[in-house]
Amino acid sequence: MTIVDIHTHVYPPAYMDLLRSRDTVPYVRTFPPSTEERLIILPGEDSSNSSTARGRPIGPEYYDFSYKIAFMDQHKIDISVVSLANPWLDFLPPSEAAETAMLINDDMDASCGLYPGRLYAFGTLPLSASVEEITEEIRRLKGMPWIRGVVMGTSGLGNGLDDERLNPVYEALEETGQTMFLHPHYGLPTEVYGPRASEYGHVLPLALGFPLETTIAVARLILSGVFDKYPGLTLLLAHSGGTLPFLAGRLESVIAHDAHLKDTNTAPKRSIWDVLSKNLILDAVVYSSVGLKAAVDVAGADRVLFGTDHPFFPPLEGEEDQPWLSVTTNYKAINDSFGLERGIAEGVLGDNAVRLLNLGFGRQSTGCGLEKI
Amino acid sequence: MTIVDIHTHVYPPAYMDLLRSRDTVPYVRTFPPSTEERLIILPGEDSSNSSTARGRPIGPEYYDFSYKIAFMDQHKIDISVVSLANPWLDFLPPSEAAETAMLINDDMDASCGLYPGRLYAFGTLPLSASVEEITEEIRRLKGMPWIRGVVMGTSGLGNGLDDERLNPVYEALEETGQTMFLHPHYGLPTEVYGPRASEYGHVLPLALGFPLETTIAVARLILSGVFDKYPGLTLLLAHSGGTLPFLAGRLESVIAHDAHLKDTNTAPKRSIWDVLSKNLILDAVVYSSVGLKAAVDVAGADRVLFGTDHPFFPPLEGEEDQPWLSVTTNYKAINDSFGLERGIAEGVLGDNAVRLLNLGFGRQSTGCGLEKI
Repeated sequence: MTIVDIHTHVYPPAYMDLLRSRDTVPYVRTFPPSTEERLIILPGEDSSNSSTARGRPIGPEYYDFSYKIAFMDQHKIDISVVSLANPWLDFLPPSEAAETAMLINDDMDASCGLYPGRLYAFGTLPLSASVEEITEEIRRLKGMPWIRGVVMGTSGLGNGLDDERLNPVYEALEETGQTMFLHPHYGLPTEVYGPRASEYGHVLPLALGFPLETTIAVARLILSGVFDKYPGLTLLLAHSGGTLPFLAGRLESVIAHDAHLKDTNTAPKRSIWDVLSKNLILDAVVYSSVGLKAAVDVAGADRVLFGTDHPFFPPLEGEEDQPWLSVTTNYKAINDSFGLERGIAEGVLGDNAVRLLNLGFGRQSTGCGLEKI
Repeated sequence: MTIVDIHTHVYPPAYMDLLRSRDTVPYVRTFPPSTEERLIILPGEDSSNSSTARGRPIGPEYYDFSYKIAFMDQHKIDISVVSLANPWLDFLPPSEAAETAMLINDDMDASCGLYPGRLYAFGTLPLSASVEEITEEIRRLKGMPWIRGVVMGTSGLGNGLDDERLNPVYEALEETGQTMFLHPHYGLPTEVYGPRASEYGHVLPLALGFPLETTIAVARLILSGVFDKYPGLTLLLAHSGGTLPFLAGRLESVIAHDAHLKDTNTAPKRSIWDVLSKNLILDAVVYSSVGLKAAVDVAGADRVLFGTDHPFFPPLEGEEDQPWLSVTTNYKAINDSFGLERGIAEGVLGDNAVRLLNLGFGRQSTGCGLEKI
């Protein structure tokens, strides 16, 4: 049995250099007198208030691949498919984007090559560059030994993923058979959390803003007809689809009742259920068996993939030596949901990822993560 | 077997008079040359654009209780627990709120009394009045024969439900043993739907905005510690909790990893799972067996209640004589999920509501809605 982590982030050295050279979000710097580097990736983190320090500490677990391997060993993970963490290259001036993307993708691929068979990666697109430059990079990524697709946020070229100017991008992804890993970053406008939000630390934007952003993005994509136009396009959705599995029925029902979509004959041709089971892959980063079972119900047991979100959600102070709770919670959800149907658990833990992302067979695992952790 | 609809709306005559007297949202008026009355309840509906007519037609199915009964008969519903539809009385000047609430609650109770045993109601609170006036109305409602709780939106006194000034309201609800039916209205800021949103009719705000609003509201309520303080408070959540069942695991995990909540010892004392299974009741208005099973998984099979959302989501043109698709979809979800476990289906269809809301036994049903529809 092979355990594969398909939701795991890294800032390779070339990207760290970029973050250290900046002084607006996103950036990395020290705040004297502390010598600790801190990462500020969200506008809301760029100040300190009563409940949140400025950004978060960033150490080698973010950029040193040997820490990734050590984390994998600690948690019995055989293979990781790493991706650049948000906000990727969304913020780059157009003139620098294409070149930077190449530099970072080369760095990522070469780093994976240092641990053959244990690390693969999703590439990053220069979304502020021209569409020609973006599709060129997609085609270039296809030829790189350890790259298996691309990671993208929800902003696309700036107007979201239902922007028709993205069609050549979807076409190139479909054509080259590369998976698009959709990941949130922008969350929701902070006013939705109300005047007491800061009392709750980072909870509301992280626990709700992220998955709701993904859900809205993929709903817009479905409504725009992208999956009618590119039936071979494959998206891997972070956090088990945000909350698409739960809301798919309501979305389908509201579409069926919308007079405008009916009058203009512009409803998506394929049902949400059909898209979910053929074009969407869900990670298993959902922290409960309730959510995991819903994910498996809609996408199919062969299209849900274990992930950790490492290095985010590390243990709190005093618990650093333990297996990460954020990881064991997801292992436990798989065990609780499918412990008696081992074919399903094995699929979710790794076999599905190996097959869907063509990861070869990696090294043989020393055992089942479920039991070892 | 008794079938109970606990999510079904009405604008009683006193409320219609109020809406007809207004010319800002919410209001009812005709747009000549048409003689049809239209209801505009959301600011976003107060203009016509390419994809949405101004508001929606409003006919007697909204305000004539005999239409409610006819709808119930058509869909084999024995008992309905009606509630004023959004936006309730949120918009009233403080000086008028208390008196208007009494008028409307009296109207609602008297209307239910015309169909003894078939209609019950959630009352409406004068939330723009003083907290004393609000709690006084809660105590008055307790004595009314057909009232079984209150319906509320997510804005509370204007700052959301985690506003400490609402504590006396929660205390009065707990003390009088009345259920608070939490229902969305305000959705999310429209910018989250992107520049193409109007092409998709009302789909994004209705399918996603509503449930996400509810989810955020109840998460804020949990984080504020209300359920630690009022362990006997009971909320019925519209649309199966928005998407709380799916995101409960993530919410719990993010809370467990939040350094601020740990440092300040301000995390809610009770787990989300505990609150879900003891303080929250979910309706079954979720339009899929995936969602329904998740709802039952988190709240328990004895705390999920059938509902229709009538008179919203009527059949589109040309299908008016058919059973409503929006209703049969929810019946089907119950049948698909629990067809072989009739105790669960019967609980969700009506027995749970009869027990939890003390509805008596109503009239005897002529049969099982599942089979008749």
